[in-house]
Amino acid sequence: MSDDKPQSPTAASAPRIVTACVLIIGNEILSGRTQDENLGFLARGLNEVGIRLREARVIPDIAEVIVAAVNEARQRFDHVFTTGGIGPTHDDITAQSVADAFAVPLIVHPDAKRLLESHYSPGQLNAARLRMAMVPEGAVLLPNPISRAPGFQIGNVFVLPGVPRIMQGIFEQLKYRLAGGDRLLSRSVSCRLGEGTLASDLSALQDRYPDIEIGSYPYFHRGDFGVTLVLRGIDRDRLVAAAEELKSLIRELGADPQDGVGEG
Amino acid sequence: MSDDKPQSPTAASAPRIVTACVLIIGNEILSGRTQDENLGFLARGLNEVGIRLREARVIPDIAEVIVAAVNEARQRFDHVFTTGGIGPTHDDITAQSVADAFAVPLIVHPDAKRLLESHYSPGQLNAARLRMAMVPEGAVLLPNPISRAPGFQIGNVFVLPGVPRIMQGIFEQLKYRLAGGDRLLSRSVSCRLGEGTLASDLSALQDRYPDIEIGSYPYFHRGDFGVTLVLRGIDRDRLVAAAEELKSLIRELGADPQDGVGEG
Repeated sequence: MSDDKPQSPTAASAPRIVTACVLIIGNEILSGRTQDENLGFLARGLNEVGIRLREARVIPDIAEVIVAAVNEARQRFDHVFTTGGIGPTHDDITAQSVADAFAVPLIVHPDAKRLLESHYSPGQLNAARLRMAMVPEGAVLLPNPISRAPGFQIGNVFVLPGVPRIMQGIFEQLKYRLAGGDRLLSRSVSCRLGEGTLASDLSALQDRYPDIEIGSYPYFHRGDFGVTLVLRGIDRDRLVAAAEELKSLIRELGADPQDGVGEG
Repeated sequence: MSDDKPQSPTAASAPRIVTACVLIIGNEILSGRTQDENLGFLARGLNEVGIRLREARVIPDIAEVIVAAVNEARQRFDHVFTTGGIGPTHDDITAQSVADAFAVPLIVHPDAKRLLESHYSPGQLNAARLRMAMVPEGAVLLPNPISRAPGFQIGNVFVLPGVPRIMQGIFEQLKYRLAGGDRLLSRSVSCRLGEGTLASDLSALQDRYPDIEIGSYPYFHRGDFGVTLVLRGIDRDRLVAAAEELKSLIRELGADPQDGVGEG
């Protein structure tokens, strides 16, 4: 499109890539008792604001493991998000472990304590519940629109609860103030060809578009099978051009390319 | 139970703990496009044969990242399982990356090639499809009862496809020959109490049963809320005793303990 011209110098320069890592903390995910629902939500939400999820780790409720994972992730990635382990029970050790990772004490945050005091009747705010007001010294609270216990941020680490609805409420209020980079746009094209039929042409297409990431995902359902090709990149014109070339080569192989859903 | 007596010396000695790590390889999981279904299946299947999943990592289709993750995981854990990236297209780089991790060449496995030859009509087994017969030198094929492309094992690393149905078929044939340790048994108890009400007694119970791992998971659905307590350990008698004490303390707090489903 000719009216995209003024943006060309930006598009041609090095992309601004901002990365994230998600640490899913909880024995219940590693035992298979609970199916994680947070990773996909965070992945899509982060991409909306120009942040690329580069790694996710599921780790147990073991202090040394959490400390090591937090310290590795906060060095390697621009943003780190943890889920799980910030409730009132003995197995909720995320806040203490994050404090240990930053080598700061765990303190009662006065605003978090006030939130809990306003929620519980007198006498109900016991020592266990007061644990939900404890954060590493220097941490900033993350507002929780769903329940009373806030998440918190320290450095580039965002500590969120594991219950999906509450995690989502906090993240939705948080995401637009996260520093993002160039957003990854996507197009997808499906067809009823085997991956092996398409592979050679697809590889050549990938070589012509090194700036576009091309993924190939076979599908099988109700006796039907085929492949969905997902193209991602930051330059919309290049993305559209690659998708059009892909459709042409699918037609040359005698199949009918279908535009996928969920275009970005 | 008195007839458990002969096993007591074993139960009292150090538990045989065998660990595993799962590496989920694929940009589509990290972008949120695809919801992973393999982690929970592997977690439960591993526990059945006495193997504890201690970590899972979701990593992108980037060779250096896969090589580093495989090499770290195979040192730290007894068994490593990878899912994804072993199809015929350019983005399927798991086999090459695992070969690089073990510093061995990638070769065409004659048995895998024969399997593909018997599946495809003459002329259909092109160079891309032949990639599915390529394994690191020294790898052993893992039979695939669902489709034609086998997984493979090299050292303590098991390389599986990402498509859940096919991964499951291979894993089901494989799991009973994996070397396992003491199996973690579980009991769960639910009640309609807030976590904060139960937390102090639960922490004291955990202190009395350091050999039993007690997890506390709040639930909220259809206006109902409460908590599920999951107890895990290798000694069935200790597990039952801890669960009975837990039920007593729930009753003392005025609530009605319910046995959970999925006892092991």
